Amino acid sequence: MAGMVVIYKQPADAKAFDKHYFETHIPLAKKIPGLRKYEVSRGPITVLAGPSDVYLIGTLHFDDLDSMQKGFASAEGKAAGADRRLYAPDESGVQMFIFDSREV
Amino acid sequence: MAGMVVIYKQPADAKAFDKHYFETHIPLAKKIPGLRKYEVSRGPITVLAGPSDVYLIGTLHFDDLDSMQKGFASAEGKAAGADRRLYAPDESGVQMFIFDSREV
Repeated sequence: MAGMVVIYKQPADAKAFDKHYFETHIPLAKKIPGLRKYEVSRGPITVLAGPSDVYLIGTLHFDDLDSMQKGFASAEGKAAGADRRLYAPDESGVQMFIFDSREV
Repeated sequence: MAGMVVIYKQPADAKAFDKHYFETHIPLAKKIPGLRKYEVSRGPITVLAGPSDVYLIGTLHFDDLDSMQKGFASAEGKAAGADRRLYAPDESGVQMFIFDSREV
């Protein structure tokens, strides 16, 4: 499986963030071709090391990196990416990691 | 499901890191009671936003936060935690996030 993990810092307006994320961004992102699973953190995030002001973590799963790249390059992928810049415009407020993974 | 995501920065000695992580840490961590799945990133990690010097991402999955807490509090959990401080002693070189999640 390949995944994209997106880590959002505490937003200035959490209510507005939630509204946009859950009502607009998730429905847009779920249209990305090849998306197999979309998980969102629920409740507080405990930080044992690293930045302490983390608010939400979203994880998108695809079969492999190739499927993910094709998904992000599609019209639906571009729309979801553009939408992200609306509710989290400041790149210092987000971390995004894309990687292939295997079970050990 | 609940998960712990551990993000490691590029180590000074990647070969030594890999040896310890794959040969010692993973076998120790897999003994933690309640661990359902352990995934490790494979190959390069693409960073779209955030720190660019990420080397490896490990994700441990448990049924829920309660199972995870019990697992980490066990002798096996403590041994795995202590071992982590051997191959990644500098907390500035690691990020660790613990959270419950749901599929959307």
